[in-house]
Amino acid sequence: MKKAGGRGMSNRMPAAVLVEFGKVEVREVPVPQVGAGEALVEVEACGVCRSDWHLWRGDPSLVMYMEWSGGKLPIIMGHEVVGTVVAVGNGVNGVQEGDKVVVPASSTGDSRNCLFCRNGLSNICEHLWIPGFGTDGGYARYMRVPAGSVADLVKVPEALQDKSSWLAITGCGMGTAFNAVVDKAQVQPGEKVAVTGVGGVGLSAVAIAAQAGAQVIAVDVNSEALERAKNLGAAGTVQAEREDPQLTDKIVEAAGGPVDVAIDTTGNPQVGVGALLAVRPGGRMVLSGLMVKGAETLPLPADAVVAREVTLRGALMLAAQRYVTLFGMLSRGDVNLDPVIYREISVHQVQEAFQAMSEFENAGRFVVTSFD
Amino acid sequence: MKKAGGRGMSNRMPAAVLVEFGKVEVREVPVPQVGAGEALVEVEACGVCRSDWHLWRGDPSLVMYMEWSGGKLPIIMGHEVVGTVVAVGNGVNGVQEGDKVVVPASSTGDSRNCLFCRNGLSNICEHLWIPGFGTDGGYARYMRVPAGSVADLVKVPEALQDKSSWLAITGCGMGTAFNAVVDKAQVQPGEKVAVTGVGGVGLSAVAIAAQAGAQVIAVDVNSEALERAKNLGAAGTVQAEREDPQLTDKIVEAAGGPVDVAIDTTGNPQVGVGALLAVRPGGRMVLSGLMVKGAETLPLPADAVVAREVTLRGALMLAAQRYVTLFGMLSRGDVNLDPVIYREISVHQVQEAFQAMSEFENAGRFVVTSFD
Amino acid sequence: MKKAGGRGMSNRMPAAVLVEFGKVEVREVPVPQVGAGEALVEVEACGVCRSDWHLWRGDPSLVMYMEWSGGKLPIIMGHEVVGTVVAVGNGVNGVQEGDKVVVPASSTGDSRNCLFCRNGLSNICEHLWIPGFGTDGGYARYMRVPAGSVADLVKVPEALQDKSSWLAITGCGMGTAFNAVVDKAQVQPGEKVAVTGVGGVGLSAVAIAAQAGAQVIAVDVNSEALERAKNLGAAGTVQAEREDPQLTDKIVEAAGGPVDVAIDTTGNPQVGVGALLAVRPGGRMVLSGLMVKGAETLPLPADAVVAREVTLRGALMLAAQRYVTLFGMLSRGDVNLDPVIYREISVHQVQEAFQAMSEFENAGRFVVTSFD
Amino acid sequence: MKKAGGRGMSNRMPAAVLVEFGKVEVREVPVPQVGAGEALVEVEACGVCRSDWHLWRGDPSLVMYMEWSGGKLPIIMGHEVVGTVVAVGNGVNGVQEGDKVVVPASSTGDSRNCLFCRNGLSNICEHLWIPGFGTDGGYARYMRVPAGSVADLVKVPEALQDKSSWLAITGCGMGTAFNAVVDKAQVQPGEKVAVTGVGGVGLSAVAIAAQAGAQVIAVDVNSEALERAKNLGAAGTVQAEREDPQLTDKIVEAAGGPVDVAIDTTGNPQVGVGALLAVRPGGRMVLSGLMVKGAETLPLPADAVVAREVTLRGALMLAAQRYVTLFGMLSRGDVNLDPVIYREISVHQVQEAFQAMSEFENAGRFVVTSFD
Repeated sequence: MKKAGGRGMSNRMPAAVLVEFGKVEVREVPVPQVGAGEALVEVEACGVCRSDWHLWRGDPSLVMYMEWSGGKLPIIMGHEVVGTVVAVGNGVNGVQEGDKVVVPASSTGDSRNCLFCRNGLSNICEHLWIPGFGTDGGYARYMRVPAGSVADLVKVPEALQDKSSWLAITGCGMGTAFNAVVDKAQVQPGEKVAVTGVGGVGLSAVAIAAQAGAQVIAVDVNSEALERAKNLGAAGTVQAEREDPQLTDKIVEAAGGPVDVAIDTTGNPQVGVGALLAVRPGGRMVLSGLMVKGAETLPLPADAVVAREVTLRGALMLAAQRYVTLFGMLSRGDVNLDPVIYREISVHQVQEAFQAMSEFENAGRFVVTSFD
Repeated sequence: MKKAGGRGMSNRMPAAVLVEFGKVEVREVPVPQVGAGEALVEVEACGVCRSDWHLWRGDPSLVMYMEWSGGKLPIIMGHEVVGTVVAVGNGVNGVQEGDKVVVPASSTGDSRNCLFCRNGLSNICEHLWIPGFGTDGGYARYMRVPAGSVADLVKVPEALQDKSSWLAITGCGMGTAFNAVVDKAQVQPGEKVAVTGVGGVGLSAVAIAAQAGAQVIAVDVNSEALERAKNLGAAGTVQAEREDPQLTDKIVEAAGGPVDVAIDTTGNPQVGVGALLAVRPGGRMVLSGLMVKGAETLPLPADAVVAREVTLRGALMLAAQRYVTLFGMLSRGDVNLDPVIYREISVHQVQEAFQAMSEFENAGRFVVTSFD
Repeated sequence: MKKAGGRGMSNRMPAAVLVEFGKVEVREVPVPQVGAGEALVEVEACGVCRSDWHLWRGDPSLVMYMEWSGGKLPIIMGHEVVGTVVAVGNGVNGVQEGDKVVVPASSTGDSRNCLFCRNGLSNICEHLWIPGFGTDGGYARYMRVPAGSVADLVKVPEALQDKSSWLAITGCGMGTAFNAVVDKAQVQPGEKVAVTGVGGVGLSAVAIAAQAGAQVIAVDVNSEALERAKNLGAAGTVQAEREDPQLTDKIVEAAGGPVDVAIDTTGNPQVGVGALLAVRPGGRMVLSGLMVKGAETLPLPADAVVAREVTLRGALMLAAQRYVTLFGMLSRGDVNLDPVIYREISVHQVQEAFQAMSEFENAGRFVVTSFD
Repeated sequence: MKKAGGRGMSNRMPAAVLVEFGKVEVREVPVPQVGAGEALVEVEACGVCRSDWHLWRGDPSLVMYMEWSGGKLPIIMGHEVVGTVVAVGNGVNGVQEGDKVVVPASSTGDSRNCLFCRNGLSNICEHLWIPGFGTDGGYARYMRVPAGSVADLVKVPEALQDKSSWLAITGCGMGTAFNAVVDKAQVQPGEKVAVTGVGGVGLSAVAIAAQAGAQVIAVDVNSEALERAKNLGAAGTVQAEREDPQLTDKIVEAAGGPVDVAIDTTGNPQVGVGALLAVRPGGRMVLSGLMVKGAETLPLPADAVVAREVTLRGALMLAAQRYVTLFGMLSRGDVNLDPVIYREISVHQVQEAFQAMSEFENAGRFVVTSFD
């Protein structure tokens, strides 16, 4: 293998490590080495995603996924990664040292050889690799990309080179939002779109649906988040209560009628049902949030789904080849995604960030941008 | 209005009337008169659909629908109707006396003027009319079609004139199956399709999916129904138990792997979840069954929907203009749908049929073909 | 019938009449009367569409259509109509006096009873009615809407009441553009879209594709039109020559690579082929322009269509029920379609406008807004 | 590399070599050796496709493709290949010695790394490899598969192991037909489908559309081919003349009305236009044939495409991952594709076969099954 670094890279680095569920500690760890087919990325920014928080809590789906994909505690967390390739192993030819890349959170684990990858859905690869789950992630200066996943690294175009925080979030949250709005819901200009939950994914979904010409209604309990949604192009907002029995009515009222599309980013069963019932007959709903322990199913009013012929679809991050189109959209002159970013933090503040997220204090994404 | 009949039609007729939930009685009632814009159909055959049974039981969705659409007890039931137009009111020009027609169970109630109708979805019309719910239905010699719904009467092509029992079932069950298999699931030749519940809708779905070139797995507790499914082209069957915890595994085993498509016709929450989990990532599921009192939501494993990017869609009967294609399929020489018909009965046996359906004794559809 | 007017409407009015091909004269004609099922519209604005110009020239498709639909010279031209309903005949209940309506150029001629209408495509109705072709059109103060077409009149929402010139153009040009960009090409945010020919349809297509989040390249010989395209959101432009052998290369260069979608609004065979060859493999092209006498076929490089698996689709105006979504888009606060309008003119300037259009002098649409 | 063979394989073999356009000679050539990443296939059957004939004639598209992809005369022809892997080079892990495989004619040339491959369209790979064009093909006992294309070899399921002639044809003709009927036209059960040209691709398209439940009309000048089409499930046939001005009318008459879908496999401009005009408004047409020298464009009646909103799509062979579904269809018990095969021949009869194809004498595919 090639020597990682050559920029006077030291041999150890601080890393935010999940040592037990609920507890992230910063530890000094060795800089990873890369073997054949692998790549080493010097991380510039790494978002703190709601699904990191789910893992931190120990919520079932993600713990199950971590185990299935071979990861185990202690592990360096972080899966919304943008950075620069600083070393590659033998046999790597898709990327080279110096390339600025996004690491799609949802990367092929088998060089795109499974049937899903081959149908354009590497984001649901049979051997899916997510950094910070299957192997160490991006809350540290350097991150190793396994051999089966190097094929999915996405080079950043010239126009976006200096947008590190946005780019980090494309790795998962904004990628998921693009998948949900564009690929799964196929939102049209002029349509009414409700987005329930406007954290990192939700704010991104608001921005993307607004870019797509839709009339967007943002729904959240956090008024600052709603303010950000407006700045990203939402035409209206709904200030929801926790456990809000009026949710459907509020959405319909804000939209001036049932919506064409609902996108739920919360994973909260009650919110999901409330949003679903606000969808017009023949409309579409996309689920992209994950559920918490103890609330692991959504009580689907199936008769309403049948009688209204609603379509529900799941959206899981974004397949690597779709970044061309996402980046095309981000490159347009009038796009400003800064309101999706809540606060830039250091690798030492990750535990604190998770605690804030437990209280839903944040409006938008924490992004780790300092690794010393 | 024109005089109904002229064939020596008497003024009264026996009719199977729902007098209270759980109780159908045969009563002598007046032959209906038609007013402006209306049509009178002499019924040749009328299927006994599982949703009639839901209404008979008083299950919530259909009682709610009946009330919403202006119907009330006592009411002549029956909504899978084929017959001959024997009288039309002033202003009717789409059909005339002597036309053999199917009455789509899911008919426009407003001459196709709502937005759903205008987008090709008259089956989810804002003013949806279902015979036997909104107004008297087809368990009697004559049935009146309201003015707003005459536009949806479907003329029967020459090639199918003598297939009354099949045609009756197209009105709801087979129409729903066509919608589910063709329009919503978009089944491709060679795909693996599981159909859970092979009553009238399910057997029709098996037949249609087999016509569409799929490898079909039929799933039911009733072994005679499974035998019929094989005769309709099923490549494999699953003999399920009531409350079968192995349902997913059995489907996957019978199909030689996860299925591309699942079509649930049961409305049973446990069956629905079992079928959903047998669908491959990126696959599709269609719900067409309705739910019973006390089991009114399906506990959706939403994380699985997200992680596998499954698409779920509801299918409600079939829009009238789609019968051209359905009839095109039925006209092909090698199609035999007789196994979908369980037994031809008289209007006096409807109560008995519902009781048999409560025990899931029937394998396929009862069809009322005798009205004296 | 109800008396037309009541606003002191005189019995005669000036009208721009096509008296022979190439010659429009203003004549005083009687205000039309409405019969049963019909409506009378007081015209506020009526665009001068390229297809009016084709008819004026006597180009084959539109002459053929005129004859097929029962129209003949002399005829009042004009088919991009917005106005107010001032009288309705017996039996009309969808609209009433005082309603501000757009008359979709492509309206059902049989109250949406043909199979195309019933599948949501009233714009290709078997009995299609286009004002100014089948019957007298909108270059006069009053226009009669035939009984079979009243069902397709589109009420204008509150937010757009004062946008008469935009609304007129939705009747055909902008409607066609919405159909082309949204319904046929299904443009996604971030995609590269070339629009060849930026007259009324083309400028509208630029605006709509930009609203949909695309990176739009506008192509024309007219530099003022290109300037307008930029104001409507085009990311780049191509100044083409007449008979430009470099057209494909110029588009690819301006777009930074082959485009995902091309939309040709010119009907010019050479432009069509040039645009087609700029489309990436797997991409889409929409044809919406009509052809002139002597150049009535497009020499399709079919091997390229096969080898690149390109999809070509025709787009003909817009079905009436789709205006809900189009109006949703137009109602967004940041939309300004003024640059699509070239000049507001009087009914006396129509001949002059056609002559200017023959020289391709105009950049955008002439709209008739003065009828005295 | 591993030693090819082990079955007493000799070092030389006869091969049908294109030595100049119009002239195939059988020559003794060395058995190919495999290098790193490559595979050696012992050919069991290799179809004689119309596009081989185009290359043999020197028709422009395929000569151009051959040159682009690095091939040059003399070259062993043949690109519809099924056989057994008898040797693999270092680093190959997707297949191993003894695997029976189809070699998709349209294979990725870069291990599925281009954007088209990554979107599921390896059949239009940027570095597309077609055996017999880019490198030596299958009209010889052994064929080498280049490193970049090994990833696309398709393993044959148990149920089809003994169907060598069918399998060969899936490599191009039947694969193209599946792509055209299922992926591009999305034929539904009950639809009317015209297939113009019932050679290898056309007969396959008839069979697949019939399996998909359509009412198929087969069109050809060769009455034996039409007879075979009936045996494969065509509901009707049209005996066309060369240069048949009545083609559209004959198709419409045979189908009992305009067709929902036309699939042209001829590449003949006049046939293409004739078929297009038989398509109903809103219908679809797929082009899969290639054109001959001197007739290289199709004079598209673009006004009709616009006015009828027809969709045209190109179909080029079949992406490797779609064979799962194609094989699923072929595995159904009631499928018999023998009528697609015209005659099994030896490698020594290839020149003769091309000459017969020039006269359109053959009804279905020649397949080379003897290599001594």
